[in-house]
Amino acid sequence: MSLVVQKFGGSSVADAESVKRVARRIVEYRKAGHDVVVVVSAMGDFTDDLIDLANQISPLPPARELDMLLTAGERISMAVLAMAIANLGFEAQSFTGSQAGMITDESFGRARIVNVTPMRVKEALENGNIAIVAGFQGVSHATKNITTLGRGGSDTTAVALAASLDADVCEIYTDVDGVFTADPRIVPTARRINHLSYEEMLEMAASGAKILHLRAVEYARQYDVPLHVRSSFSHNRGTWVSDSPIPPTFAPEEEETSMEQAVISGVAHDRQEAKLTVVGVPDIPGKAAEIFRVIAENEINIDMIVQNISTRDPGRTDISFTLPMTDGATATRVLNDVQESIGFDHLRYDDQIGKLSVVGAGMRSHPGVTATLFNALSEAHINIDMISTSEIRISVVTRADLLDAAVKAAHTAYGLDSDSNEAIVYGGTGR
Amino acid sequence: MSLVVQKFGGSSVADAESVKRVARRIVEYRKAGHDVVVVVSAMGDFTDDLIDLANQISPLPPARELDMLLTAGERISMAVLAMAIANLGFEAQSFTGSQAGMITDESFGRARIVNVTPMRVKEALENGNIAIVAGFQGVSHATKNITTLGRGGSDTTAVALAASLDADVCEIYTDVDGVFTADPRIVPTARRINHLSYEEMLEMAASGAKILHLRAVEYARQYDVPLHVRSSFSHNRGTWVSDSPIPPTFAPEEEETSMEQAVISGVAHDRQEAKLTVVGVPDIPGKAAEIFRVIAENEINIDMIVQNISTRDPGRTDISFTLPMTDGATATRVLNDVQESIGFDHLRYDDQIGKLSVVGAGMRSHPGVTATLFNALSEAHINIDMISTSEIRISVVTRADLLDAAVKAAHTAYGLDSDSNEAIVYGGTGR
Repeated sequence: MSLVVQKFGGSSVADAESVKRVARRIVEYRKAGHDVVVVVSAMGDFTDDLIDLANQISPLPPARELDMLLTAGERISMAVLAMAIANLGFEAQSFTGSQAGMITDESFGRARIVNVTPMRVKEALENGNIAIVAGFQGVSHATKNITTLGRGGSDTTAVALAASLDADVCEIYTDVDGVFTADPRIVPTARRINHLSYEEMLEMAASGAKILHLRAVEYARQYDVPLHVRSSFSHNRGTWVSDSPIPPTFAPEEEETSMEQAVISGVAHDRQEAKLTVVGVPDIPGKAAEIFRVIAENEINIDMIVQNISTRDPGRTDISFTLPMTDGATATRVLNDVQESIGFDHLRYDDQIGKLSVVGAGMRSHPGVTATLFNALSEAHINIDMISTSEIRISVVTRADLLDAAVKAAHTAYGLDSDSNEAIVYGGTGR
Repeated sequence: MSLVVQKFGGSSVADAESVKRVARRIVEYRKAGHDVVVVVSAMGDFTDDLIDLANQISPLPPARELDMLLTAGERISMAVLAMAIANLGFEAQSFTGSQAGMITDESFGRARIVNVTPMRVKEALENGNIAIVAGFQGVSHATKNITTLGRGGSDTTAVALAASLDADVCEIYTDVDGVFTADPRIVPTARRINHLSYEEMLEMAASGAKILHLRAVEYARQYDVPLHVRSSFSHNRGTWVSDSPIPPTFAPEEEETSMEQAVISGVAHDRQEAKLTVVGVPDIPGKAAEIFRVIAENEINIDMIVQNISTRDPGRTDISFTLPMTDGATATRVLNDVQESIGFDHLRYDDQIGKLSVVGAGMRSHPGVTATLFNALSEAHINIDMISTSEIRISVVTRADLLDAAVKAAHTAYGLDSDSNEAIVYGGTGR
């Protein structure tokens, strides 16, 4: 008997009708002989509604109470989903994060899972039930307070449960058919990717592909949980994420060549970053460290960093870095506070930037991938402002208004367009 | 240091503004030096909204899942109330029924409290917090499943917590000023009652006074918890329910004479009952028992019973009883099923009846109370259809359209009108 963990997001259970539709889908698996554990998010925008309510009450609600409040959302969706399954003649039991053994630390609003002890879920399965588990929530080990895992937390709940229960697959249901070679709203010729390695999916997620939460993919890689990202609105095969072949039970039609790595898997983009430049930093050891210590102390994640000799004063440097737009105001404030002690001239803030990332495990063995990107952007008259790379990723920053054109140019250049039959020749000297 | 348990119903916390108002009220008590535990119901009509949602999903939702669903309501209200208190600069922590140690049996939808172990509530109080507890809900002892206590369950939660914590008073906040001598919508001269014994309150609640749930009053009597029923919209003194004097801390203005029993405390009424007559039952031992066994097996509570020799056939009797209108259809169906075996002629169903009850502990020592009622109704040309009595209550059934007039007549006859200075003389032979 195989065990499937299925995760349905808020858009899949937005109202009574969609809850019933999801219930039918779950029951199909049960009928096919699988054990099924379902992780569900709050219905539609209910979590946002609760946040609005909290904000009406208090500008700064205590974190413990905010987590208590938000966990009401999944409590509702899981109970009605269990009802809908029962209405189809199958036994189902719902479990809160706490009941399902999602043990976390005490960091309200962004708790980390420290242990998973799903005894009651196992018992429910043994008794022939479909188990429905609240996503996004847990209970703290030390104080038994209710916690939430933060945005995208339901994906993490699903993967953590799949790991703990040794599930054959963790299916992540969403409103699109899987992970695409680029955002189809920008690149109409984008194709669904059949299979990604964990590392590629991590780089895609970190580069702006919103379909899976980074943390869930990290967890899946750590515990080797095969993920299947697919649409809750169709029965199409979606995108598998794993480092091993797909179990034949779940993908009988899988082609033999599926594990052969594409050189480039996809082109991701991100409009949510801004660029902050610290202008005229004294070129003395320790000054850059001081800047990034202040940034880190305020829990701001930075992405790319570029340091140049100042054009205006050879004894000074300009340090630029990218950061989430939402942290822009904080970063500006905390750096202005230390302007005097660091001795820089001024700050320059720019949120009209876009980041394009090309991801593919094949980069390791194929030289010339970088040159292909730069040629494509150059031919499209797009200037590159910053560059960063990892082993399997190249990211560049462009002007925001040129980002769409850059994504299209890169997608075509790497032969990812669905109507493309071109064999791409990577040449040149190294990456 | 005194400890106050305060219970706020859904209408007191219907929206963000009323939550803030309730928070200010709670904080007043904290400022005055009391320890405060608050029991709160779901906001406004949220529980009904959840029931509607469940009904959209399934005509017969599993009881376990329905309880899981409904408990989301108090989770929301308690968390936002804790936030509102924190926003006023006071520490507050919310607790689910399970966290507050409300241990119940496993009867979903109408669970009975089997134990109260509020360790976390005590700890919160010791740490200077105001404790907010979800009303209406608990957790089953045996299976750790979430349960609800049924309609009016939040009152019971408050009383049970007050008993377990040995609180000085359990304040029940509602949208009226207390318990009245009659429903002010029917009798404009009705007065707020200062003080009732548990027994009187029990009879009032059982006779249709909706202000307190019967079960909560029973619990309060059993554990001798003083109740104070009062309005959340004013600071007026409400109605105390206890068998002992009111603690001076909470009612400094209490008159010395307050414990002197009024002969009649109030006039209650009930429009929710119907009368079912089983016509032509063979006058053989065991036939009545058979009828009431069928009724009891279907968990229908009956109230008054009258048996008469059938006017049509002296060898047969007519048995009439009253029951909640909501059980009318079930009772009719299950009795029709056994018509042949019991051998009765037919059923007669009448839901155009009203029940009037006069309640007062003074009845025990004052003869003539019954005669006063019958005289008053007779003078008002109101016919009495059925009669039942307890030690401190007389109830009569009248036609529904005459009930208001009957209540007014009784209220006046017992000198309960607020403009009345008459000394009522009870005379006659016995009750």
